[in-house]
Amino acid sequence: MSIQTLKEEVARQFGTPAVVIDLDVMERNIARLQALCEAAGVANRPHIKTHKSPVIASMQRDAGARGITCQKLGEAEIMAEAGLDDILISYNILGEEKLDRLGRLLQQAKVTVAADNPTVVAGLPRAAAMAGRDLNVVVECDTGRKRAGVETVAEAVALAKDIASRPGLTFAGFMLYPPENAMTETQAFLDAATAGVRDLGLEPQMVSSGGTPNLANLGRIRGVTEHRSGTSIFNDRMMLAAGVAQLEDCALTVYSTVVSRAGAERGILDAGSKTLTSDTGGLEGHGLILEHPQAKIARFAEEHGFLDLSACNDRPQVGDVVRIIPNHVCVVVNMVDRLVTVRDGAIVGELPVAARGRLT
Amino acid sequence: MSIQTLKEEVARQFGTPAVVIDLDVMERNIARLQALCEAAGVANRPHIKTHKSPVIASMQRDAGARGITCQKLGEAEIMAEAGLDDILISYNILGEEKLDRLGRLLQQAKVTVAADNPTVVAGLPRAAAMAGRDLNVVVECDTGRKRAGVETVAEAVALAKDIASRPGLTFAGFMLYPPENAMTETQAFLDAATAGVRDLGLEPQMVSSGGTPNLANLGRIRGVTEHRSGTSIFNDRMMLAAGVAQLEDCALTVYSTVVSRAGAERGILDAGSKTLTSDTGGLEGHGLILEHPQAKIARFAEEHGFLDLSACNDRPQVGDVVRIIPNHVCVVVNMVDRLVTVRDGAIVGELPVAARGRLT
Repeated sequence: MSIQTLKEEVARQFGTPAVVIDLDVMERNIARLQALCEAAGVANRPHIKTHKSPVIASMQRDAGARGITCQKLGEAEIMAEAGLDDILISYNILGEEKLDRLGRLLQQAKVTVAADNPTVVAGLPRAAAMAGRDLNVVVECDTGRKRAGVETVAEAVALAKDIASRPGLTFAGFMLYPPENAMTETQAFLDAATAGVRDLGLEPQMVSSGGTPNLANLGRIRGVTEHRSGTSIFNDRMMLAAGVAQLEDCALTVYSTVVSRAGAERGILDAGSKTLTSDTGGLEGHGLILEHPQAKIARFAEEHGFLDLSACNDRPQVGDVVRIIPNHVCVVVNMVDRLVTVRDGAIVGELPVAARGRLT
Repeated sequence: MSIQTLKEEVARQFGTPAVVIDLDVMERNIARLQALCEAAGVANRPHIKTHKSPVIASMQRDAGARGITCQKLGEAEIMAEAGLDDILISYNILGEEKLDRLGRLLQQAKVTVAADNPTVVAGLPRAAAMAGRDLNVVVECDTGRKRAGVETVAEAVALAKDIASRPGLTFAGFMLYPPENAMTETQAFLDAATAGVRDLGLEPQMVSSGGTPNLANLGRIRGVTEHRSGTSIFNDRMMLAAGVAQLEDCALTVYSTVVSRAGAERGILDAGSKTLTSDTGGLEGHGLILEHPQAKIARFAEEHGFLDLSACNDRPQVGDVVRIIPNHVCVVVNMVDRLVTVRDGAIVGELPVAARGRLT
């Protein structure tokens, strides 16, 4: 089927905007991530926040992934129900409601959680007690990104000691999300933290690094045992801009119809901030239109994508269906209940985004 | 119940982040919008894109609204199924899949659609033919906002003539979304377009204006018969900034837990861009924290809201639950499947966001 026919067929069957996955590209991305991890001697623990699909997570596991990473407890619950059984929740879990759910989850699956402060650690034994099973806890360390994580080696060691002292908790190791240009600093932090916990008789069995751009650094930090990559399953305009993906690695496009041309140098897509989201990822414009790369998705209303066509010689017409690579793919998947799947230029079916909307 | 107890109870029952509606405030907002429209002698046609709930739409109708406005066909389908029966879809509808659905919708409810170009008008008779019933079409006019809509009176009149010439279509009038500071220009456009269509023997039965900030201009454009307001049902930080709502008019808050303090001047909320969205609405920061108004929600990861606490004397602690008025409420409601409802400081229940995710 030609791409023109495929676009017409997707629009006819599903309407636009539609979030479409090329399964061939996705499967190549799954294989590539696994191969990169194996070449570096690091286990693969893909982050499912990007796809939120137990079907895709199972494909990643079957390709060789050690386990998966979830950002939210609700995501982990969906994955465990589907039989995924080695889950890192890379997030501070707090509050009775979540701790009770964590306890029930721990009865179903092997679970590791992250913590970066003593308040979180103090709550976790409740979950372990409910499960009647030890809970693995890694200390989240911030080696320069200024995100979550303890900022000093002393805090990391103190938190490891705190974890090890709590009933039902096992100190499992460290979780990192190193800035791409801070390998030396991260190595120094990890070495010192490792020495610190060994002085206490503790051993970091698991050291997790993360980030799709950091795939370029895989194997550069001694002691890392596994890696979390989410975006590489689909890739996006941010990954293109970072040089870690090529156009042919982008598995997800948003099919959108040009619904108006407004002025001569303007156009309007039926995909606005409720489809493509306002996440810019620090880039100019809100997506790459494959058919009109010179067109700029300049701004959004909720259901309008406003095109600046002034630099565009070949301008789209009302009714044209175009394909957009979004700036940030993780938040786009999160807007829809189902992904349309295609292969070899033909529609395969639909794939539920089962953990979408699991905010808690 | 004290607000502290309510926050704890919401967190205990639903977990955080939770999107919470104060029903008393919402009901006041419904009554106020209706009263404003009646005082101006303009019919009320609230835009349901903000709440996406047939329950709330029915409350608006029961308070006196003439009908409702939807931005997407999928929203209109949900509303019609629930018995809402006078629906304006303020959007260009294109393509066989949507036109067939529009035809089926027209069999169920009185429907008016907007069009701003001849390609859209040419498609619409398909829907009317399927329904066996006339379809009302309004010409969307752009009087300066540079959004959707014809930009000239000549185009507006030509499109009205085109509509009137098509089988099954009725030219119903004009749809405006005037810039708040362009009342004079909008009046001139509307007067000229009205004269133009009258010369053709056509009469604009319906002239719809829109926007919550334009409630301050209600009644100022002669000829307007009804008004579309969405955001006023809940209000948000943009409406506070625009001076059209006060804190006590904000019916929606996001309850979020502080999950980390990271550095001394930093903090992390469990609400990130997958909850509060990256829509800034042109404002600095991503929301107003009622308990810590000096705290700035400086940036997001998907599930982290990063707080800059440097200007904040009273700093939140890990585990605190805070209430956030988001910058743009319409996109926040769209992230969740259910709203938590409260009244008099006590939990009432949950309200489904039935039309969420209806992108097409």
